[in-house]
Amino acid sequence: MTSPAIGVDVGGTKILGIVLAEGAIVDRVERPTPSAPSGDLGRRLDQAIAEVVGELLEREPGSRSTTVGVGLPGMMGTDGVLLAAPNLRSATGASLQAPLQAKLDRDVSLANDADCAALAESRLGVARGHDDVVMATLGTGIGGGLIAGGRLLRGGRGYAGEIGHMVLDPGGAMCPCGSRGCWEQFASGTALGRLGRDAARAGRLAGILHAVGGDPEAVRGEDVTQAAQAGDPEALRIIDEVAWWLARGLANLVAVLDPTMIVIGGGLSANADLLVGPVGELLPSMLEGGRDRPAIIVAAAQLGPEAGAIGAALLGRGDG
Amino acid sequence: MTSPAIGVDVGGTKILGIVLAEGAIVDRVERPTPSAPSGDLGRRLDQAIAEVVGELLEREPGSRSTTVGVGLPGMMGTDGVLLAAPNLRSATGASLQAPLQAKLDRDVSLANDADCAALAESRLGVARGHDDVVMATLGTGIGGGLIAGGRLLRGGRGYAGEIGHMVLDPGGAMCPCGSRGCWEQFASGTALGRLGRDAARAGRLAGILHAVGGDPEAVRGEDVTQAAQAGDPEALRIIDEVAWWLARGLANLVAVLDPTMIVIGGGLSANADLLVGPVGELLPSMLEGGRDRPAIIVAAAQLGPEAGAIGAALLGRGDG
Repeated sequence: MTSPAIGVDVGGTKILGIVLAEGAIVDRVERPTPSAPSGDLGRRLDQAIAEVVGELLEREPGSRSTTVGVGLPGMMGTDGVLLAAPNLRSATGASLQAPLQAKLDRDVSLANDADCAALAESRLGVARGHDDVVMATLGTGIGGGLIAGGRLLRGGRGYAGEIGHMVLDPGGAMCPCGSRGCWEQFASGTALGRLGRDAARAGRLAGILHAVGGDPEAVRGEDVTQAAQAGDPEALRIIDEVAWWLARGLANLVAVLDPTMIVIGGGLSANADLLVGPVGELLPSMLEGGRDRPAIIVAAAQLGPEAGAIGAALLGRGDG
Repeated sequence: MTSPAIGVDVGGTKILGIVLAEGAIVDRVERPTPSAPSGDLGRRLDQAIAEVVGELLEREPGSRSTTVGVGLPGMMGTDGVLLAAPNLRSATGASLQAPLQAKLDRDVSLANDADCAALAESRLGVARGHDDVVMATLGTGIGGGLIAGGRLLRGGRGYAGEIGHMVLDPGGAMCPCGSRGCWEQFASGTALGRLGRDAARAGRLAGILHAVGGDPEAVRGEDVTQAAQAGDPEALRIIDEVAWWLARGLANLVAVLDPTMIVIGGGLSANADLLVGPVGELLPSMLEGGRDRPAIIVAAAQLGPEAGAIGAALLGRGDG
């Protein structure tokens, strides 16, 4: 029996802490993510994380041996500093590891949240048994977690897996990261929303336009997926376009990493049925070696919104 | 003291076999790569490789414990089959590992040649001491070898590192692999040649045009690098364009893999001075986290045309 492991997933709006034992969640704590003016969030963030962990430890018998891992929504360096975090901008540059370790009096492992989710899916989720896995989490942007040779691929400084910022067309839309044509500009919730607004402005999404009160600028990605689920042909055309770009970026990752399995997670994966099938069909035609190459399985994530916390727990206990 | 290790590098025109002992090449054999009509090359190829190895083994005292590794110019699967090989088309689909092992009466490790070169540079070359390395070999196309966490990244089926086939612009030039806008269409010897011919046709490369006898279609990549070395401003402009695309693709790989070092090898690296500097300067501005991120070293390969054979030897003795 392995010791219980605490995993914490820090999101833009909430912090989720769980206790993982024998591969199952046996306890959980949730609280809002603190906010603070620019640059000041770091100290409040480590305090909030420590409180979540402290609460779980108090309820945990034999908590001295309990390990702790934390997933953060950004470029979490192996130096313990959060280099960049689009959804937690005021925590940019925060040194998190040293103060957390001091407060909790134990080693704490930190990593990017999508890295944690990929680890969870590869150990306990849909990618069990696969040693080479690409996980793409689709939300506002595209996050990524990579498993190579059975281990989490972290890179030289912990920044690996920033797959949403592969540039797929240098003439494409401006990305908040500073480059043009990043993958996430073509194949995320943001992209769905933008294509939806374009279509609404051109008068091609009457049903959606009516539902949002007539203002094309009010159309969001969710509206498009909803309309597509209801069979709206224009919404389905938009989904097809996003699926094409999703497959295109995944094909690039296959060229680089040669996974045996691709996992689609994140907010958009609630509509995985719309994307997973088309992507699985498009992918082989986009690969070198094409259809001679053994098939790569494309599947929706299985562990849902708790994947990040589960993976953080696995990372904390050294199972990365 | 480690046992001597034999490494073989199979190229489009020649097969080079070496004996590596204490990190140095102590013996070598070279012969032409056999040719054969479509599909028939496989059997002649394993025979030719076995003969090169046999010759080295004969001269090797205590050859019973000598290990053998082979680098091939294509998608060398961990199943022992060469899935695709642009410069050895008639060997496509050849099962190489089983017959080679039978002929040589020992285990033989096979891998892609650029994978082998990356391994060599990371163990004995310019990337010594780096655990996370991207190597791009620039020639007709772009080959790649990736080191992650100190190990060669081979992927689920041995096809990892096909970095030249990342698509950087789906509207770009057609690639022999079947996709449009692959990286190697923008940043290889082929790209240099194409840009050179375009410029010559437009009357902007008078010096080169004169040197090749007045026919713009005769301009090749080497002519452009030569003219650039001599200071021709139009040739330097072409080099700048290729350097931009080279940096753009490398930035994508940094997003995915977060290396601490990038090595530029292959035929074009003889002109590394023209490319390495500009790429190193462009790269930080193309990265998420930009200039806050620790610098990534960009350097020319050190081991020259023997890198592939050296890396094959390392792979064969289990140092992959």
